[in-house]
Amino acid sequence: MKRSARIGVAGATGAVGLEMLRVLEERSFPVEKLTAMASGRFDSRTVGFGGADLPVVPLTEENLADLDIVLFATGASVSREFVPVATAAGAVAIDNSRMFRMDPDVPLVVPEVNPQAMAGHGGVIANPNCSTIQIVLPLEVVRREAGLVRVVASTYQSVSGTGVAAIEELADQSRAVLDGEPAVSGVYPTQIAFNCLPHIDDFDEEGHTREERKMIDETRKILGIPGLGMAVTCVRVPVFRSHAVALNVETEHPLDPDEARVLLSAAPGVRVLDDPESAGYPTQVDTSDTDDVWVGRIRRDESVENGLWMWVVADNLRKGAALNAVQIAELLIDELPD
Amino acid sequence: MKRSARIGVAGATGAVGLEMLRVLEERSFPVEKLTAMASGRFDSRTVGFGGADLPVVPLTEENLADLDIVLFATGASVSREFVPVATAAGAVAIDNSRMFRMDPDVPLVVPEVNPQAMAGHGGVIANPNCSTIQIVLPLEVVRREAGLVRVVASTYQSVSGTGVAAIEELADQSRAVLDGEPAVSGVYPTQIAFNCLPHIDDFDEEGHTREERKMIDETRKILGIPGLGMAVTCVRVPVFRSHAVALNVETEHPLDPDEARVLLSAAPGVRVLDDPESAGYPTQVDTSDTDDVWVGRIRRDESVENGLWMWVVADNLRKGAALNAVQIAELLIDELPD
Repeated sequence: MKRSARIGVAGATGAVGLEMLRVLEERSFPVEKLTAMASGRFDSRTVGFGGADLPVVPLTEENLADLDIVLFATGASVSREFVPVATAAGAVAIDNSRMFRMDPDVPLVVPEVNPQAMAGHGGVIANPNCSTIQIVLPLEVVRREAGLVRVVASTYQSVSGTGVAAIEELADQSRAVLDGEPAVSGVYPTQIAFNCLPHIDDFDEEGHTREERKMIDETRKILGIPGLGMAVTCVRVPVFRSHAVALNVETEHPLDPDEARVLLSAAPGVRVLDDPESAGYPTQVDTSDTDDVWVGRIRRDESVENGLWMWVVADNLRKGAALNAVQIAELLIDELPD
Repeated sequence: MKRSARIGVAGATGAVGLEMLRVLEERSFPVEKLTAMASGRFDSRTVGFGGADLPVVPLTEENLADLDIVLFATGASVSREFVPVATAAGAVAIDNSRMFRMDPDVPLVVPEVNPQAMAGHGGVIANPNCSTIQIVLPLEVVRREAGLVRVVASTYQSVSGTGVAAIEELADQSRAVLDGEPAVSGVYPTQIAFNCLPHIDDFDEEGHTREERKMIDETRKILGIPGLGMAVTCVRVPVFRSHAVALNVETEHPLDPDEARVLLSAAPGVRVLDDPESAGYPTQVDTSDTDDVWVGRIRRDESVENGLWMWVVADNLRKGAALNAVQIAELLIDELPD
């Protein structure tokens, strides 16, 4: 019988932290005690959990003591400081920031794809980038059947990936534009309302963004193909929730679209919606707040011998962040001492 | 000395037709007489031109008589019927619909790229698809220097490509969503406000859209490379005006991003904005209502030997439609009999 666990959520008042609480509740995660923590300015003093208002306490060494698992929905600098504090106190940390993802000693896990990577973890397990999570599920299905040669991806990412302030900025700017007033930018460098920004996270010297590098590096690590050819452009679009990706895949062996549809439909965590004649394809609005990675527009790319297009949509706050972290916690529960 | 011409604009009350009138005015096109025509239900009874209100007359054989050049901003079925009427009456037709684009006897022209294709035209010249126009300018620059092997493109297309009703639908739905009310769809099969639809024009049996096929077929015809490897996903985004394209190009020979920047900067009709450190990249809102094809985020794609990424933005109503058509008319003016 599974024991229940003492769970901490760090960054509990942010968009991902709040979603973690929802997902823990919905999945009836065996919680013995829940500690909601936040650093810096709190967005709220209490958060709802299990039908009650839970006080939000500061993210400190004291509050990280006596926990079994801590879910970190914090940025890289906060994770850098407090993940080691949590593990030193005996907890396992599941970290959603980029801080530990590429550390060779830290497993980077999507439970449907590489649960085996968790074996022998040293107390920290990294949750991948939202866009990475949603592409590795279909990519792993394709890889098992036909092998991967090269991946070219262009993303359509919602503002909730930036956080609560960005959601407000999109709403405020949209109202302003519709009223013929100027759009005021604060979170983004330029107007996001009714506009697309090819800019997510910082630029490096070669002109790639960190988000683009993350998708490439993390996909290679999760799939265990260090030399996978991969090219990515990441774009922020004026959508509140869920990310979409136009995913072009060149495979080693032929993979018929019909066969891909069957394989993807059978894969855990993946749902196929691919009936274009009746507008049957996933969109961000239609699939938000669901747990699955949705795949549609599966079709042949005739420009290479073995080419396949897919349109991949997932809720960046759920499977792209909170749900994936809780699924990792579920795998951990089984290994906790009784 | 150039003579002035008797110009007709068919579909003068639509989004593209109105833009044609603006562009003719702005460029001081030598208009002897302008006939504004519309078929079916008129959006308005007059249109502004040269500081006056011009009556809109029905698109008929009678009104198509005695014109030198007719710009057709009409759909395929109207163009199919009336382009031959215009040419039979002695006019040259510049048609913005898909109707004649792939006809081997009809030149498909982007003046900066293939003006030579106009030689010996038979009275009809086709204006390419909006997304095609904006990618062939940078592609031709890259091709001349380094040759093209394969192109993978994902688009971010605004609703103005669908027309005036779609612009209203995006505004109305956006207001409704912001007010917590249901979004009512009429023009698009599902909500476009705060959503992306991987669906432009009809689907074919292989699951591609006609828009995707158009971009492939038309690019090959304009560049004169029938076998060019090309893969496209077209996506409608909640943006009012201008299209963006994430354009991945594999070249025959190496092309350094710095060299590409220099070549593109020198190309007529192209403007480079590529200073990512200070958010220097083109966006749809920032470049709307300009004549150029804007290119930014020029960087190496390391997944192939000679790979290059570009982010290409242009105003779909201007260079993507009206301006390109008027530029074709300007080339025609020189060949009209005195």
